[in-house]
Amino acid sequence: MRLPASRELDGIDAAVVGIPFDSGTTYRSGARFGPRSIRASSPLIWGYNRALGVSPTEELKLVDYGDVGVVPVDIRATMAEIAEEAASIIRAGATIVALGGDHSISLPLLRAHAARYGELAVVHFDSHPDTWDQEFEDQPYSHGTPFRRAIEEKLIDPEAYVQVGIRGPFAVPKGQLEPAHAGVRMITTENVFDLGVQAVINEIGAAIGDQPVYVSLDIDSVDPAFAPGTGTPEVGGLSSFQMLQLVRGLRGLNIVGFDLVEVCPAYDHGDITSILAANLAFEFLSLLAVDRV
Amino acid sequence: MRLPASRELDGIDAAVVGIPFDSGTTYRSGARFGPRSIRASSPLIWGYNRALGVSPTEELKLVDYGDVGVVPVDIRATMAEIAEEAASIIRAGATIVALGGDHSISLPLLRAHAARYGELAVVHFDSHPDTWDQEFEDQPYSHGTPFRRAIEEKLIDPEAYVQVGIRGPFAVPKGQLEPAHAGVRMITTENVFDLGVQAVINEIGAAIGDQPVYVSLDIDSVDPAFAPGTGTPEVGGLSSFQMLQLVRGLRGLNIVGFDLVEVCPAYDHGDITSILAANLAFEFLSLLAVDRV
Amino acid sequence: MRLPASRELDGIDAAVVGIPFDSGTTYRSGARFGPRSIRASSPLIWGYNRALGVSPTEELKLVDYGDVGVVPVDIRATMAEIAEEAASIIRAGATIVALGGDHSISLPLLRAHAARYGELAVVHFDSHPDTWDQEFEDQPYSHGTPFRRAIEEKLIDPEAYVQVGIRGPFAVPKGQLEPAHAGVRMITTENVFDLGVQAVINEIGAAIGDQPVYVSLDIDSVDPAFAPGTGTPEVGGLSSFQMLQLVRGLRGLNIVGFDLVEVCPAYDHGDITSILAANLAFEFLSLLAVDRV
Amino acid sequence: MRLPASRELDGIDAAVVGIPFDSGTTYRSGARFGPRSIRASSPLIWGYNRALGVSPTEELKLVDYGDVGVVPVDIRATMAEIAEEAASIIRAGATIVALGGDHSISLPLLRAHAARYGELAVVHFDSHPDTWDQEFEDQPYSHGTPFRRAIEEKLIDPEAYVQVGIRGPFAVPKGQLEPAHAGVRMITTENVFDLGVQAVINEIGAAIGDQPVYVSLDIDSVDPAFAPGTGTPEVGGLSSFQMLQLVRGLRGLNIVGFDLVEVCPAYDHGDITSILAANLAFEFLSLLAVDRV
Amino acid sequence: MRLPASRELDGIDAAVVGIPFDSGTTYRSGARFGPRSIRASSPLIWGYNRALGVSPTEELKLVDYGDVGVVPVDIRATMAEIAEEAASIIRAGATIVALGGDHSISLPLLRAHAARYGELAVVHFDSHPDTWDQEFEDQPYSHGTPFRRAIEEKLIDPEAYVQVGIRGPFAVPKGQLEPAHAGVRMITTENVFDLGVQAVINEIGAAIGDQPVYVSLDIDSVDPAFAPGTGTPEVGGLSSFQMLQLVRGLRGLNIVGFDLVEVCPAYDHGDITSILAANLAFEFLSLLAVDRV
Amino acid sequence: MRLPASRELDGIDAAVVGIPFDSGTTYRSGARFGPRSIRASSPLIWGYNRALGVSPTEELKLVDYGDVGVVPVDIRATMAEIAEEAASIIRAGATIVALGGDHSISLPLLRAHAARYGELAVVHFDSHPDTWDQEFEDQPYSHGTPFRRAIEEKLIDPEAYVQVGIRGPFAVPKGQLEPAHAGVRMITTENVFDLGVQAVINEIGAAIGDQPVYVSLDIDSVDPAFAPGTGTPEVGGLSSFQMLQLVRGLRGLNIVGFDLVEVCPAYDHGDITSILAANLAFEFLSLLAVDRV
Repeated sequence: MRLPASRELDGIDAAVVGIPFDSGTTYRSGARFGPRSIRASSPLIWGYNRALGVSPTEELKLVDYGDVGVVPVDIRATMAEIAEEAASIIRAGATIVALGGDHSISLPLLRAHAARYGELAVVHFDSHPDTWDQEFEDQPYSHGTPFRRAIEEKLIDPEAYVQVGIRGPFAVPKGQLEPAHAGVRMITTENVFDLGVQAVINEIGAAIGDQPVYVSLDIDSVDPAFAPGTGTPEVGGLSSFQMLQLVRGLRGLNIVGFDLVEVCPAYDHGDITSILAANLAFEFLSLLAVDRV
Repeated sequence: MRLPASRELDGIDAAVVGIPFDSGTTYRSGARFGPRSIRASSPLIWGYNRALGVSPTEELKLVDYGDVGVVPVDIRATMAEIAEEAASIIRAGATIVALGGDHSISLPLLRAHAARYGELAVVHFDSHPDTWDQEFEDQPYSHGTPFRRAIEEKLIDPEAYVQVGIRGPFAVPKGQLEPAHAGVRMITTENVFDLGVQAVINEIGAAIGDQPVYVSLDIDSVDPAFAPGTGTPEVGGLSSFQMLQLVRGLRGLNIVGFDLVEVCPAYDHGDITSILAANLAFEFLSLLAVDRV
Repeated sequence: MRLPASRELDGIDAAVVGIPFDSGTTYRSGARFGPRSIRASSPLIWGYNRALGVSPTEELKLVDYGDVGVVPVDIRATMAEIAEEAASIIRAGATIVALGGDHSISLPLLRAHAARYGELAVVHFDSHPDTWDQEFEDQPYSHGTPFRRAIEEKLIDPEAYVQVGIRGPFAVPKGQLEPAHAGVRMITTENVFDLGVQAVINEIGAAIGDQPVYVSLDIDSVDPAFAPGTGTPEVGGLSSFQMLQLVRGLRGLNIVGFDLVEVCPAYDHGDITSILAANLAFEFLSLLAVDRV
Repeated sequence: MRLPASRELDGIDAAVVGIPFDSGTTYRSGARFGPRSIRASSPLIWGYNRALGVSPTEELKLVDYGDVGVVPVDIRATMAEIAEEAASIIRAGATIVALGGDHSISLPLLRAHAARYGELAVVHFDSHPDTWDQEFEDQPYSHGTPFRRAIEEKLIDPEAYVQVGIRGPFAVPKGQLEPAHAGVRMITTENVFDLGVQAVINEIGAAIGDQPVYVSLDIDSVDPAFAPGTGTPEVGGLSSFQMLQLVRGLRGLNIVGFDLVEVCPAYDHGDITSILAANLAFEFLSLLAVDRV
Repeated sequence: MRLPASRELDGIDAAVVGIPFDSGTTYRSGARFGPRSIRASSPLIWGYNRALGVSPTEELKLVDYGDVGVVPVDIRATMAEIAEEAASIIRAGATIVALGGDHSISLPLLRAHAARYGELAVVHFDSHPDTWDQEFEDQPYSHGTPFRRAIEEKLIDPEAYVQVGIRGPFAVPKGQLEPAHAGVRMITTENVFDLGVQAVINEIGAAIGDQPVYVSLDIDSVDPAFAPGTGTPEVGGLSSFQMLQLVRGLRGLNIVGFDLVEVCPAYDHGDITSILAANLAFEFLSLLAVDRV
Repeated sequence: MRLPASRELDGIDAAVVGIPFDSGTTYRSGARFGPRSIRASSPLIWGYNRALGVSPTEELKLVDYGDVGVVPVDIRATMAEIAEEAASIIRAGATIVALGGDHSISLPLLRAHAARYGELAVVHFDSHPDTWDQEFEDQPYSHGTPFRRAIEEKLIDPEAYVQVGIRGPFAVPKGQLEPAHAGVRMITTENVFDLGVQAVINEIGAAIGDQPVYVSLDIDSVDPAFAPGTGTPEVGGLSSFQMLQLVRGLRGLNIVGFDLVEVCPAYDHGDITSILAANLAFEFLSLLAVDRV
């Protein structure tokens, strides 16, 4: 997006931050190159956002903060690193738009945001609920567990936590199908097709109100036809148009942070997944800009 | 799907059977690697099917039967082999979920099923009717002719034969457009978009009632955006979500056999076609499980 | 499409003409191989067009004219070459179906058609308006400017100029968002999803009436899931089914020429973009045939 | 190579003939698109051959004859078609440069050439000897058997039959390792690396003398790094430079026909296999031209 | 290689063991799919090894043991798992041929083998020495450090440790270039080209004598033209022919275990890297068989 | 290579400069993304160059200057831009390492260097001589002509101009085969294989002596197996090892500038061409560093 590369955050409204970590992945690894590929696909994406009526690159002071230092072989050290770096950006007054990396990065990001804003409302676009207890024996942290951990750690207000786009076989015994917490709203892909995008947006708005909200978008919420470059593709998903409409529908919420995860370029082709991700990041920035106007 | 590999069929409900034959193909060959690729894409697909409310891998006794022996240079020898192996599986009481291979494999499968169940109702998802008389001079057998042969051989009850998803230019002289038999119902892709999935499901149900029904799904019924890895891609097709809904809509029919054909991995990317096919096979097994409940 | 290769235009209804030029491209080059790839993907596309009820390859006398000579390093020399060759084909009485190449080729084609038919109505399918003033300092000609130039040169009647499929960020300062001319109708992708295809077709018909109309289709009007092989992919686009319906909806207009541009095979996979383009060319020819009946 | 497309053979020196058949393949199918892809990769290959000192496209009258009609589902019908078409070209006085297709096409080509020239000397570049007795039970014809059949049918003089490039595991029981006939010379890849290209050329020349010789080149004789687009890749092979040198070393032999087989574009990338094949065809034509000078 | 899948090791000579772990990777992840892809590429590789004069699949009792359970997010837990499983296989009397996975898996494998055989001689094919002290601050374990750790843990006899194929820029300050231990022999790629394969084989033999030797082969020792599918490709490498010759040259050594690592299918094309790896595994088995004869 | 991005040239030894222009291309376009892709492939390439015994990133002050502004539709405007920018970098005392783009960029670079150093010696690695008179009628400038123009403009001393790696068919009438000037030395690929790398290095040294020399490396001098991502691949070429040895052999020459052209990522796979190019740029910088020591 032709943003200036800088770690100088004085007066900056928002910072794009890469988090090239994928060792939390259970199926296809490779999301570590997500940030690089999304940036490479972004040079054509700037200017005026007709749908939202703003020019975020003009109306906001933005930087590309570069990448957080990660340690592929140590998820705990990486999480500490992410949380600390995120906290310092938040303290400097900039809103974070984090580019993953796999979904395990959301937990330290939620920690840093909750430390500043208290229990967070969350809009979570995904095909998987990522609220498993453990994917691997005795391993609390991986890309399938961050939101369960976040509820347990009271980073998320479960009553204001909305999952959108869930679908696919549920890889758990039938007896354990209950969500991580009774209050969590799960809007499946089937719901989106049945009710329509506007109804879903209304439901999100009703659940969240004006609480500080964190937005986490797993690119596999979109169908693999539109986003093949991802680690655990799930067929029967949303189109890119539906996803753009859903994100634009968050206009007016009190958004305090974003992440966009699971872009895995090795399985992409023609860069269409990275281009979609770069456009979604542009919509995130537009949401911030529209709040200013 | 983490099924046990076995040819021991005692007490088995259903058997997944690979048929790696593609010499019946007229355009892009390569479907012989369909079974291998669908299996490789299946390890994440198991557990609970939310849409149908069943866990097929728990509720059914399933095996991966392995591949039928085929002879690339001899379609008649291959057809005999398929028919014989299929007959023995049916006799053992297991329902066949056959993974092709090109569409020419459906004829021997229909022969084996009709020998056991009599004239079959058929739900046939495809972009092409595959009811040509001859694609090549004097060659009765190829991937464009199995359903015409099956009608002629009285394996199919034409009044209970429904084609879904037909589209694209019709490569025949205008005078020969009539279907293979007056009773055959052809539901085009345009019909699906116009009428909606539920209306199509109702029409299928009305045509078939409680007859024993065979389901044949050519992956090219889905649009090449969602299923690029196929031999004769036809644009303007169904989405993967529509196809999943259509298959789930077969719930309640008296299904006696399945095939899933024309997955051609060499033209796939990011394995999205194979992943879709593995999910459709999971839906097939779920249909069998839901009948049990 | 198995057309005879010939430059003999006597009695010919329409000529498919390749224009392998891509030096007007600002992002991904490679559209020079569009004609070659579309032709290679066309052998299965012939016969009867069910949707329009015609067999264009039977009802029209068609030729594949081959490629216009282009000069990669000189856009002005190339434009002169295109205009001259197009004029001679038009004089011979054949309708041109031009296969690009990048969108800069439309300007000389419009010049040749306007010289014969006067100010043209235009239906322009695209995700970008291509009515920039200058993409590069002091360079009037590139793939982002042809329609502005054409309005200035009075080749197009702005009141009968309809753009369909526009979307994406607008890479211009906010103050310069006005269209190239007050009369131009811009139907965005969002409009198509909101209003439906039939309403859009009606709007096009109302704007154009029975004026001679030129149809220009940039493949990036379709979403990159369906058409990844293009130079400036824009997410959130139309499906291939919607595009086919829109093109078929032009039935009854007085179409005098076509182009189909920005197919870039190096970013395609499984040839799905080229196959879509070949099908769209088949629809173009069907539109000509249906007018004859 | 910018050859005129024509079936008019009067006064023609050599004809390039496509044979798009791959149902004789035992592993990866797809060689049916070999002729199309080799032709598409040939436009830059023409002019002066420095190594051999000739300009074949100037010094010979050449045509692109187009493709032989094949029947994917019937290898015997296809073989009859090939033999008949080849015989008619040979009768017209043109030397055939056949582009496959899989290696099973060599048998009917050898039949046609032996009918005209008697028992043939053969130079056979390949990583596999293709002299199996049967790959499939009771199937005499497939891409692994043509040269054994040709010896049995006395189309080849075994004493003047040289195999070059053989390597890889031998998929036969140890007791059956003897060559198809005692006289056959097998020069392994290891021999080529050890002895050097010139020694191999000398050995070929010594074996063949001035007998009429047929040249059959399976692209898998070259290492998959240089020729990934093939059906049964065999690692540890020759470089493209070595292969070019070996082919040029055939200068002076009395060559009466050529084939070039097993180019499988679906597994190619960047078209490097097709470009290599097109260059080898150019060398074949140069060998014919150099004999004229 | 058509090996029986079994964990029953009674009387088994050698077991192929997959280790699908890649969280030790510092650049491109994805080697976790190495075992799956190598197995899928192996069906054509069996029978008689002409170069070594043995048929390993006939002369040895072999099994495919399946994959070791790994924990992507925890390298220490994974290492413990590998060491334990390897120890139990060794105890059962089977020689391990381990398929990685990234190079970090060699350390636990060396631990298991050293526990049985004492300090090991090692032949280590690689473009990188993998004897870094730490790639990441305070992280002793990753794919760049196993051999330094192994020397420190006295698993390897440094005087009998030979590295072959080293090349490329050395990503360390100039002052730290000394090898991990004075006795280690480093044979660079340049040495191999200069001295020839036979001289290198002689040097290996002289260093190792009849000590028990472990062979570790990183596929990036081969040039990326021959093995593009790997995590840290290093240009200017060995050809596949040279690597085959080097491995065959180990004949006669007292080999007690093997690993083959860093095959990363997402960056492969036409499966050429996996096919090479499967062939190298076949050579490993042949080395075991030839010792028996 | 982790170089600082800067246009501040004070005290800088060398500047890496991208020139993303490919409208001079006659076959496959796409080299405009060469600079982006080479940079993305460079993060692992730094530290100590064992072959030349230097650490260029430590011993030199280096910057990544970013890209020169180019105008895809106007080769003359682009050439003026390149020449001007290059002249200003040379004036600031930094040696240019230019990353193309197509080979037409060499002419303005030669102009800028000759303006400073007088007639230049040139080492030109390429499979094509690029000394055509005109590729397109009346077009003096394109990627096939820069060196002929440079001789005509007296930018190059023909007696000190050495071409290395030439091969392939010569696409000119036989009568026009003479080189652009009698003094030019052409060392073909065949010469390199026959004489060996060291003899070629000696011949280059003898021709050039201590004249100021410009090095131009077209990546297609390397075989497409090692460098598939290029516009006009030419089979039968050098290995990457040979090319590295040739470049290192330039040690001791008085090199004043470099370019590295024709990397075309759209035809690359696994990024192996870009990784090779990044390594060659590292060798260029090492040559500069070694002169300092």
